Amino acid sequence: MTEGEEMETPLTPLALVSRGVRLHPQRDAVRDDDQTISYGALGDRIERLAGGLRRIGIQPGDRVALLAPNTAQALECYSGVPLAGAILVPLNTRLSPEEYRYILDHSGSRALLVDAASYPLVQPVLRERPDLLAISQRGEVPGLLSYEDLFGGARVPLAAESFPAEGEVLSINYTSGTTARPKGVQLTHRSAFCNTMNMVLAMGMRKEDVHLHVAPMFHANGWGFVWATLAVGAANVPLPAVQGEDALRRIGRHGVTTLCAVPTVLTMLLAAARGEFPRGIRVATAGAAPPAAIIQRVEEELGWTVFHFYGLTETTAFITHCEIPQDLPRRDVSERARFKARQGVALPLAGEVRVVREDMSDVAADGREMGEVVARGNVIMQGYYKDPDATARAFAGGWFHTGDLAVLHPDGYLEIRDRAKDVIISGGENIPSLEVEAVLYQHPAVALAAVVAAPHPHWGETPVAFVALKEGASVTPEELIAHCRRHLTHFKVPSQVLIVPELPRTASGKIQKYLLRGRVRGDSPAAST
Amino acid sequence: MTEGEEMETPLTPLALVSRGVRLHPQRDAVRDDDQTISYGALGDRIERLAGGLRRIGIQPGDRVALLAPNTAQALECYSGVPLAGAILVPLNTRLSPEEYRYILDHSGSRALLVDAASYPLVQPVLRERPDLLAISQRGEVPGLLSYEDLFGGARVPLAAESFPAEGEVLSINYTSGTTARPKGVQLTHRSAFCNTMNMVLAMGMRKEDVHLHVAPMFHANGWGFVWATLAVGAANVPLPAVQGEDALRRIGRHGVTTLCAVPTVLTMLLAAARGEFPRGIRVATAGAAPPAAIIQRVEEELGWTVFHFYGLTETTAFITHCEIPQDLPRRDVSERARFKARQGVALPLAGEVRVVREDMSDVAADGREMGEVVARGNVIMQGYYKDPDATARAFAGGWFHTGDLAVLHPDGYLEIRDRAKDVIISGGENIPSLEVEAVLYQHPAVALAAVVAAPHPHWGETPVAFVALKEGASVTPEELIAHCRRHLTHFKVPSQVLIVPELPRTASGKIQKYLLRGRVRGDSPAAST
Repeated sequence: MTEGEEMETPLTPLALVSRGVRLHPQRDAVRDDDQTISYGALGDRIERLAGGLRRIGIQPGDRVALLAPNTAQALECYSGVPLAGAILVPLNTRLSPEEYRYILDHSGSRALLVDAASYPLVQPVLRERPDLLAISQRGEVPGLLSYEDLFGGARVPLAAESFPAEGEVLSINYTSGTTARPKGVQLTHRSAFCNTMNMVLAMGMRKEDVHLHVAPMFHANGWGFVWATLAVGAANVPLPAVQGEDALRRIGRHGVTTLCAVPTVLTMLLAAARGEFPRGIRVATAGAAPPAAIIQRVEEELGWTVFHFYGLTETTAFITHCEIPQDLPRRDVSERARFKARQGVALPLAGEVRVVREDMSDVAADGREMGEVVARGNVIMQGYYKDPDATARAFAGGWFHTGDLAVLHPDGYLEIRDRAKDVIISGGENIPSLEVEAVLYQHPAVALAAVVAAPHPHWGETPVAFVALKEGASVTPEELIAHCRRHLTHFKVPSQVLIVPELPRTASGKIQKYLLRGRVRGDSPAAST
Repeated sequence: MTEGEEMETPLTPLALVSRGVRLHPQRDAVRDDDQTISYGALGDRIERLAGGLRRIGIQPGDRVALLAPNTAQALECYSGVPLAGAILVPLNTRLSPEEYRYILDHSGSRALLVDAASYPLVQPVLRERPDLLAISQRGEVPGLLSYEDLFGGARVPLAAESFPAEGEVLSINYTSGTTARPKGVQLTHRSAFCNTMNMVLAMGMRKEDVHLHVAPMFHANGWGFVWATLAVGAANVPLPAVQGEDALRRIGRHGVTTLCAVPTVLTMLLAAARGEFPRGIRVATAGAAPPAAIIQRVEEELGWTVFHFYGLTETTAFITHCEIPQDLPRRDVSERARFKARQGVALPLAGEVRVVREDMSDVAADGREMGEVVARGNVIMQGYYKDPDATARAFAGGWFHTGDLAVLHPDGYLEIRDRAKDVIISGGENIPSLEVEAVLYQHPAVALAAVVAAPHPHWGETPVAFVALKEGASVTPEELIAHCRRHLTHFKVPSQVLIVPELPRTASGKIQKYLLRGRVRGDSPAAST
């Protein structure tokens, strides 16, 4: 060998996991209610899982689907399946049989790892797919292989010689957009590595941390925390069902120091928090632009620190974070929260992020001109699986198009004003739904708010607000409209406020605005005021 | 475009510098005694320097040498030269004209950027090389281009489209190894990126930091701090001459929070420290195994925290660091210092490090069995420039051989027991014993010569020569020292020459240097001069 290029080892999260296992064999890798798993034991299981998958015939490049809530077993699959050279296809636990059928077929999955409790969800599909190797986790299912039986034989060593090339696909994550069909986002080992390092850096992850997986791992691979924890030797606490009391109980019991959760789930934790609970927890939030009011409440009422990330599954997951300027702690708490609600600046290993006009020129950095957020760099997906047309559209002009509209502030921080498709256009004026929602969140009675466009004979569209109240709170639609009038330009004030018991949400807690739009368009009866 | 691979941007320190410049235009990038340079201004200078180099005919892949102490201008060259697509060849300021001649010729350098104060060092070489574009920094030199004249014209944008591919060579760093001739270590953009991220992570670098460049930038690119600072938005304080009082003065004046220095320079700072000076500084040390006593004194007397790194120029620079276990602060201070003197564990982006027997099997992790430290991964050099034989030897068996002997402790931490046996490290400079011996052998009276390291309170080590004379020949130690002065750079001259009747040798005739080292360390009485 005369060249050092052969000395390069792949940039993959597996390299980080391998280092964590080698350095910290005695430390806790998983703290679950019924078991604690050391790094040494986890490394052993990851190697045996990879060996077991090979033994049942899984070949490099094969797709292996996983349907499970946040469990220790799911966590190890995020390393064990890629170590076998296979491509992980994490499945959302809240899909319909038709959606499971589509994704399992479209991905060409050869095997399905399924949590015994989730099995009924896919039972009808499995009956039609006798070719699919189905393996049950955490419990026996008649007719299925048992997950623990995979662990008996050979291992694949968790070392560089076993790792796929960094340009290989690590996972295909199907997005549940509002479009008819889910799209398969191909994320490479390299992109996952870069996102993992971004999370370690931005969150200041260290081996003393204990991380509560609140956000589902099947969403963009738990935003990278399935590896960021193992890279540094931190402990993982899985939260199988997103339930406020159980989350707070595990936080106390297992000594949690970091967690990841979407803004709506933070609202749930705020509602559940009573009495003594740990302060000083570092919270990663993302997945929907968090209103400043929620950030402020988390920091004031819980004494936690919010780290705000922005990105999409297509960006593995994050391209920006709201890096906190040196002098921010000195500002007052509501100004601080408003600042933290910005999506911020490019993460160190993300690449380049711009806010552009339709002709791809940069918008003015004046905090006013809106444009689309586009990005390129190492965290951008390799493309949609078997969908060259959608890939070409997403990559038009050599940049990945997020479909999100933002302004760029003079300090270089970007702030999302709306999803392109969620902007309300009324009398030729753009009304960013997030701006109206932020005002509604400032009202003490409001727990959740969503503003969508309703057709209007004169203005084209008009904003309509759906609001869920805090437990025990009381307010009338008229009072909320008056509140909006005090804080918003007149044309942005909702023409109607609908107070509802709850808002439709996805598994990740994202409010499903398309269902609300359907209601105001008369696709289904809207709740009465 | 249907594939996302084209969205990948190179992993290069330039990407990190670019991000720092974009995010922190108003922050201080450089704090020098006579000037402060903002990130905006530094980014501008880096772009114009790259443009200026292109204008005078520098092509991608051309080698551009740099001979300068630690200055603001040198700092910007570590980004501006690579941005032009050229390969930087940093020159040690303590070499002989013959060594400069060799390196400039061997590297095929097309241009030389030289600090006006360092110009006399290369003046004789430049007279013989009229083809070399010589450019003087920080002062005019008659007949040389002026550095500042490069900044007038076009720029190369500090953006992904300008960056070389990550596998391209960024710098060729010449080591004065144990062979007669310096070897050119080729470091790629990717390896420099990985080392930079390792330093950011291990030192916890943040934009509030102010870094004092004590270690020469020409040593392994300032160990990566020339970029690690800019990656996060921290300030750089250059220290042109390693002088204890000046270092402490700059620490106070510029608000220094981090610095990098070899152990012998730490001794110098300890000697100079008097009265009030800032505490809490984070100190990166490396370059020679630091004695536990020095670490303890730095932590106790100065109140600074020592971070111990290990590696070679060939590993860009570092493969391990002594990561501090959670419970170490509770141990007593001398136990803590002894622990910190270990070379430690692999850095997150370094790759894999092993301690192996001659058959490449792992030594027992018992803290007793010695083996050679070998490594592979992304920080390993691409190879020695134009030296395939030395490269092949260094990469024997698919691992880079450090030539250092270490033990592996049961906790996985490695500890060097013997530096590459024959190298003497004096004041941070490598003194190859073979080179000094070769000069001694040139003297007509010398029959056998062996040069070993003796401990030195200030320089760490100092070369001591054992000489056996030819039969009937006569020479004094003083005459041999004078002989060496005529043929060697001053710091390589033995501080003591011991004339002995015979040198201990193995059956095969190899001189047993370890016995000589024992003598100068006082293990047994040294022969009288």
